Amino acid sequence: MQDFPLTITSIMRYGTEIFGRSAEVVTWTGGEPRRRSYAEVGERVARLAGALRGLGVDADQRVATFMWNNAEHLEAYLAVPSMGAVLHTLNLRLAADQIAYIADHAEDDVVIADASLIPLLAPVLPRMKTVRHVIVVGEGDTAPLAGAGKRLHDYETLLAAAPPAFDWPDIDERQAAAMCYTSGTTGNPKGVVYSHRSAYLHSMVVCTGNSAGLDARDRVLPVVPMFHANAWGLPYAALMAGASLVMPDRFLQAEPLARLIAAERPTVAGAVPTIWADLLRHHGEHGGDLSSLRLVKCGGSAVPESLMRAFDELGVPIIQAWGMTETSPLATVAHPPADATGEDAWRYRVTQGRIIAGLEVRIVGDDDRVLPRDGEAVGEVEIRGPWITGAYHRDEDPARFHDGWLRTGDVGTLTADGYLVLTDRAKDVIKSGGEWISSVELENHLMGHPDVIEAVVVGVPDDRWQERPLASVVLREGATATPAELKGYLAARVPKWQLPERWALIEEVPKTSVGKFNKRAVRGRYANGELDVVRVD
Amino acid sequence: MQDFPLTITSIMRYGTEIFGRSAEVVTWTGGEPRRRSYAEVGERVARLAGALRGLGVDADQRVATFMWNNAEHLEAYLAVPSMGAVLHTLNLRLAADQIAYIADHAEDDVVIADASLIPLLAPVLPRMKTVRHVIVVGEGDTAPLAGAGKRLHDYETLLAAAPPAFDWPDIDERQAAAMCYTSGTTGNPKGVVYSHRSAYLHSMVVCTGNSAGLDARDRVLPVVPMFHANAWGLPYAALMAGASLVMPDRFLQAEPLARLIAAERPTVAGAVPTIWADLLRHHGEHGGDLSSLRLVKCGGSAVPESLMRAFDELGVPIIQAWGMTETSPLATVAHPPADATGEDAWRYRVTQGRIIAGLEVRIVGDDDRVLPRDGEAVGEVEIRGPWITGAYHRDEDPARFHDGWLRTGDVGTLTADGYLVLTDRAKDVIKSGGEWISSVELENHLMGHPDVIEAVVVGVPDDRWQERPLASVVLREGATATPAELKGYLAARVPKWQLPERWALIEEVPKTSVGKFNKRAVRGRYANGELDVVRVD
Repeated sequence: MQDFPLTITSIMRYGTEIFGRSAEVVTWTGGEPRRRSYAEVGERVARLAGALRGLGVDADQRVATFMWNNAEHLEAYLAVPSMGAVLHTLNLRLAADQIAYIADHAEDDVVIADASLIPLLAPVLPRMKTVRHVIVVGEGDTAPLAGAGKRLHDYETLLAAAPPAFDWPDIDERQAAAMCYTSGTTGNPKGVVYSHRSAYLHSMVVCTGNSAGLDARDRVLPVVPMFHANAWGLPYAALMAGASLVMPDRFLQAEPLARLIAAERPTVAGAVPTIWADLLRHHGEHGGDLSSLRLVKCGGSAVPESLMRAFDELGVPIIQAWGMTETSPLATVAHPPADATGEDAWRYRVTQGRIIAGLEVRIVGDDDRVLPRDGEAVGEVEIRGPWITGAYHRDEDPARFHDGWLRTGDVGTLTADGYLVLTDRAKDVIKSGGEWISSVELENHLMGHPDVIEAVVVGVPDDRWQERPLASVVLREGATATPAELKGYLAARVPKWQLPERWALIEEVPKTSVGKFNKRAVRGRYANGELDVVRVD
Repeated sequence: MQDFPLTITSIMRYGTEIFGRSAEVVTWTGGEPRRRSYAEVGERVARLAGALRGLGVDADQRVATFMWNNAEHLEAYLAVPSMGAVLHTLNLRLAADQIAYIADHAEDDVVIADASLIPLLAPVLPRMKTVRHVIVVGEGDTAPLAGAGKRLHDYETLLAAAPPAFDWPDIDERQAAAMCYTSGTTGNPKGVVYSHRSAYLHSMVVCTGNSAGLDARDRVLPVVPMFHANAWGLPYAALMAGASLVMPDRFLQAEPLARLIAAERPTVAGAVPTIWADLLRHHGEHGGDLSSLRLVKCGGSAVPESLMRAFDELGVPIIQAWGMTETSPLATVAHPPADATGEDAWRYRVTQGRIIAGLEVRIVGDDDRVLPRDGEAVGEVEIRGPWITGAYHRDEDPARFHDGWLRTGDVGTLTADGYLVLTDRAKDVIKSGGEWISSVELENHLMGHPDVIEAVVVGVPDDRWQERPLASVVLREGATATPAELKGYLAARVPKWQLPERWALIEEVPKTSVGKFNKRAVRGRYANGELDVVRVD
């Protein structure tokens, strides 16, 4: 067989040539949306590559983006890897310190930024030491960027001055194409580097029937940001399938999204559960037309069954998927098996999903022993395959790898037919006398109690069992439930040995910057004796 | 990213483990079909690999199959490449001389043969010099094989004696996995060698939405033989998608196929146009239930529009596809573009199809110049990509390759949006004064005349124009059309410069062994002055 490399260049050429006339990228603006055919995108991609080369971008230099989901971000997605450089999508939701650290660590040379994001970029830019150029997309006051000592450019001016064709280089498929940093709740963020090969194979997988089955009739709406694990691979997959892209830009609230969906009729969409919950609420209050959607991919955190059922009622199937920055990200998709229909299908739809072809997943116990795939044994999820990271950028962390498998840091079970159920993060699981207790499961049960607003469960040291669960509970105002009553409530729902002996009634659960329970803070308060703990034996 | 190889081993493991319970392979027997779950297939594949190793099959030795489409052929498809050996599918429709030549040229070590094919195999077997073992599948009289000096084995006995697990070796993705010989109408057959990588990528492509979009709910019926370009890649793709397989074995006539479709409810099927034409006729006479079919892939020769329209009326979409043994085979698929609906879609459905993602196709003129992709310029079709052959097995033939592209030997046009229309075989095209005339187009027009039964057009030497068309026509009994009248009929349909000046009325068009027009024979007869040629200027 011919030795033909799998590259983003080939996706870019194929998409913009073969579907140049029939597919488009639509960018929402609040007013009249901007439309660009894939043929126009193709020419602009060549101009962008020429402009970047003109600024001195060469070899595998990093070109960062600080952008919403829009046509210009797509152009950077295509131009930068195809010219042999490396696309680095900066997460604009991170704290300024983290953004500065990441841009420096990646040694970004150029930043392409949306004008609407100048207020966010301005305070960080002076600290991005390796950055030489900033290219601003769209109209906006660039004065706040002026003092940072970088050369400022206008995106459209650069493109207009560049030639409409580019001499795309030959690329080895294992060459770096793009990078993305994990948000890193502990320690510094880590850079995941995608190769042309991994991006190509991941795009193919998104187009297969067991994933999203994209084809040239689809219109794809990535609500999930393009700086968040490549918008789940949807942009490259859309180019490969000849599917149009509908880009929400910065309009991520339920009201503009509902209008966008009704007007642009996307067939496939991807977003985190919160967005769909908001959209459902908006639909309940204001109605709207969601009928174009044949498939909604949902992930990022567990998708409530009630949310999926409510969308099913509207004829919109939400399918859960799981992955992480390190896995490109698609790893499992919760399509039910062929023989599970009706209510039976829900047993599978509530899981994180079935392993997709190309990857291998296993569950590993405390002692690094591989556990049976029986849907019962609980252990850390390990994964390997051609679009799974094998190392971090300039960061030796052998603890994250195990005999060539990536340790995901997630804990769960795996069935014989490859369905994954996550029960906890590895660092939050409670190890009691050799058995593992899911903190998340106990919390979910407790939060089902009518008197409980919030509950957080962490493992605390125990002389006899090594670790035991501590339950910290926020009660509704005026509620009278006691720890003993709550323990009784739990006793009807989980095995006896999992029941917490240590209880605290607290005012509020401490949260991280993105609103997740901060279990490290809870463990710290306990260790410092700041919690008023009651023992219920 | 991890350095994880793309192998048939991984398809085999994934399909038989993840879909072990939910998918099956069904083999038609005339009576009660044989059913085997993918889990059972998985164990039998391991046993087969063990049995072959026990017979001394090692390294990249060739294991040939001489089989219909059935569960055991699938087992060989999976076991042989996964153990590191090379699967060689012998085309049982070839002449004995060719089969013997091919088996020798490939240096086959073992032949696995269906008992029902012993009568075909017996006369060839003594001439297969490198073959040591013959494994017979099913019940049958093996006496005719006895004198060939080979060791005979019973398939089930071997499997029963082998261990139920096999220690699958690590495989480099560029290692040979399978081979298939072209039927070779001129010269000796040529061996195409598929790598694990090419088979893997091709399987993924079959699962994408712009191809067949296979998923775990599908039941796939490959009527196209597994010895003919890998049954268009459907078996491996089915394992990758977790789709069930419905195998027709030797029951390829309309009546058993209609019963099979009604009983086993395949959703996707693949076969040459003749099969579908027979099935349509049968359906017209006897009725039947074709409602399970969501997609019928059709190729091997041009699919008549009338056939596609008739199936459309029945709610069964026939989609044309094109490829060849050298292209794995999938290269183009005639799904219409998103914006072509209703009658407009037919402009695309009658083409050979749109280039699929991953491949590049171009049209090259007489002087090896690349011609515009405008739907008008006619030239030889060249193709390249990761599942296109770059060389033949033990056969230097640089004339088939051009700067890393495969010369397909087909002639046609290509539109800007990648739709291919074939007009001729390169060796049959008529080159008149620097312009190309399609022999097939002239034949099709002539055969539309009510007096004409058959017409064959070949290029013959011409002093002024280098080549000019000669039309040889078979008239209906009692018909009175003259060459001058036929030329007048053509004149209303093709440009004047394409009209033949040389005409012959003949009794019958000479045919090849597979029933195609033998144009070489016609050119020979003309050269030898055996044709009674009339000049009409």
